[in-house]
Amino acid sequence: MFGKIKVKVMDSAKYAKKLGEEDPRRIFHAVKVGIAITLMSMFYYFKPLYHSFEEAGMWAILTVVVVFEFTVGGTIAKGLNRGAATLLAAGLGVGAEYLGNACGDKGEPIILGTLVFILASVATFTRFVPRVKRRYDYGVTIFILTFALVAVSGARASEILKMAYERLTTILIGGATCMLISVCIYPVWAGQDLHNLIATNIQNLATFLEADAEDKSYLQSHKTVLNSKANEEILANFAWWELGHGGFKFNHPWKLYLNIGSLVRECACQIETLSGCLNSKSQAICEFQRKIQPACVEMSIEASKALRELGAALKEMRFPSSAVEIHLRNSKAAAEKLQNIMHNSSVPTKADFQHIVPTLVIASVLIDIIKFIDKTSSAVDELSQKAGFKLKPVDHNQVVVDIVEIKTESS
Amino acid sequence: MFGKIKVKVMDSAKYAKKLGEEDPRRIFHAVKVGIAITLMSMFYYFKPLYHSFEEAGMWAILTVVVVFEFTVGGTIAKGLNRGAATLLAAGLGVGAEYLGNACGDKGEPIILGTLVFILASVATFTRFVPRVKRRYDYGVTIFILTFALVAVSGARASEILKMAYERLTTILIGGATCMLISVCIYPVWAGQDLHNLIATNIQNLATFLEADAEDKSYLQSHKTVLNSKANEEILANFAWWELGHGGFKFNHPWKLYLNIGSLVRECACQIETLSGCLNSKSQAICEFQRKIQPACVEMSIEASKALRELGAALKEMRFPSSAVEIHLRNSKAAAEKLQNIMHNSSVPTKADFQHIVPTLVIASVLIDIIKFIDKTSSAVDELSQKAGFKLKPVDHNQVVVDIVEIKTESS
Repeated sequence: MFGKIKVKVMDSAKYAKKLGEEDPRRIFHAVKVGIAITLMSMFYYFKPLYHSFEEAGMWAILTVVVVFEFTVGGTIAKGLNRGAATLLAAGLGVGAEYLGNACGDKGEPIILGTLVFILASVATFTRFVPRVKRRYDYGVTIFILTFALVAVSGARASEILKMAYERLTTILIGGATCMLISVCIYPVWAGQDLHNLIATNIQNLATFLEADAEDKSYLQSHKTVLNSKANEEILANFAWWELGHGGFKFNHPWKLYLNIGSLVRECACQIETLSGCLNSKSQAICEFQRKIQPACVEMSIEASKALRELGAALKEMRFPSSAVEIHLRNSKAAAEKLQNIMHNSSVPTKADFQHIVPTLVIASVLIDIIKFIDKTSSAVDELSQKAGFKLKPVDHNQVVVDIVEIKTESS
Repeated sequence: MFGKIKVKVMDSAKYAKKLGEEDPRRIFHAVKVGIAITLMSMFYYFKPLYHSFEEAGMWAILTVVVVFEFTVGGTIAKGLNRGAATLLAAGLGVGAEYLGNACGDKGEPIILGTLVFILASVATFTRFVPRVKRRYDYGVTIFILTFALVAVSGARASEILKMAYERLTTILIGGATCMLISVCIYPVWAGQDLHNLIATNIQNLATFLEADAEDKSYLQSHKTVLNSKANEEILANFAWWELGHGGFKFNHPWKLYLNIGSLVRECACQIETLSGCLNSKSQAICEFQRKIQPACVEMSIEASKALRELGAALKEMRFPSSAVEIHLRNSKAAAEKLQNIMHNSSVPTKADFQHIVPTLVIASVLIDIIKFIDKTSSAVDELSQKAGFKLKPVDHNQVVVDIVEIKTESS
């Protein structure tokens, strides 16, 4: 019995260590929340503060517990939502209070009950509006709560304004503490996370394309890309609330990341088809396959290099270098070559025909993938421009390559 | 100015009407929340109740505002989480209180502060464990909140047990009201929603496959399937908490829906490739294409019929009829036919070779899609068995078809 518990505890400890090692920011986050709550509870505990705020002090703790999120953007979003909603609802609540008082002792509960019912229903309904849901969901919850509390409790507490003042102050103190700790101690920026996620996803696709078909382990690298939509959207919503940080200004075009993300996901979908073909490809290789395979490999390698540079540029927050253009051009040239081979090669004999279909599918899907990379490249260019990323310092070797390239074209 | 406001108000009203018409359950939900909050605030308002619970009455309102979710499962999950976490945290908090008291006036704030810090940090860290995050996220929040409040406020309130009792009672009343209203008035079951979502997704794929290639509007029907993963997971988590309802027992195998969902999504990914080919297909049709097209169309039609029946069976909560088997067999036969044609047909001339690649890709992807439908069919069969769906009432026409089928095979 004791042994079993020991094993369980050891397992949990190992698991916790693994979680912490995977992303040490989790440990910092836990400690930050601990600090904020302890600060607020001391604020509640010590007499001098206690006497000036009384029970309202608990609102500071409550605020910290529900507002403190993992990312800075999440914390700011919830903090501002809470502050604004409390102000608005308290104002309306006081108004409802006066209206209720004017209607006499019998009319008051009816008026107040009706108002609470209408506002709570309407506010709940607005949560189904996608834009409200995305940005102000928490604010609406707090609005309903505060309005109901103020409208009803005012009927008891004669000092409604004093109470409102105390509550607001403690909520502001709680919210401000969360935001300060969140921004100042090891901040986790949702914007930076979104930025890295998109760059990593692009590089995951590159990893797939450059993987040796023999090494099946890399063939899974696109799977995470397929499922990252929900995460991207949450991060983009939170990033919208964030101050400037690192190379990101306050009005960074976060929406463009979602565009890139969805292009990358469509590309990952194509790659899913590709991976199906690679797994089912028959081993025997005929003459025709031997002819078109080098072109396919070249397309794939060049496409992966273009993706690799796009991902690297994004990660380093600079304009993609001309290498992207060059690799894309090379892979399009390989596609051209492939089509020429198909055009001019000796037609496969009947028996081979079935054999070569998977190869043809791979070739065709690769051509589609290059189209998507082209679109992704434009989207990354647009982002670099709108976000004011730095231009890459001129690389002289690169310029030479460019000139050679241009000469080759014009000749 | 006035005109502008009028236009805005009219637009909002129209939009609200649209939202309500899309899913009338949204309106019911808003009204249900309104009723629950009004009930709780009246409970707070009227004197007899007020005197026995005092300020604690606000916890009932607070509970309703944060616990009442759109689905029954969500409401039960949050309500039970809140109840259990409050009980546990209140118990620990009272313990911490006594420990603090034993340490004297100077030691008390240090002991209590340390305990709050440790528990808040550890509890916050556990929220990164996926299983905790999925089921008990809200409970952990409430645990931290209640523990901090009880541990610290007890230092002031001498009647800590009375306070704990009042708070618990009001929270239980608030939670129970939410659950009752949620279950009894037009309940929205997360399980039923998940069930319908998966069935609809299967039918969306069928719609794509049976769509006339000329009618491009249907070619979008698989897009929503690609993005429904996050939604499926939320519904499955909530469904886990739900009581039996309709044909679903308490222990319905909700996890199997996620399996089916991910198979359907992989299939949608293949269809995405297919739709790319259909959009880019050249208009000129050569002899070879004319030969294999009927087989492709047959594969596609038979596959869509199999999917249609799978979706219908799921929706009606019955075992899929033998029609699925038959249609799958037919589409596999068509695939066989296709491969024979490719094997025996006159080899296309060089010029045609490039032309026919999109057709070959379509054929190859269709063959893959049939494999996925096969897997989906097995997954639906497993679900029907484990969930105890009803066997289809014997359909005599169907039996005849079956017998004919068997005869044909054995002959």
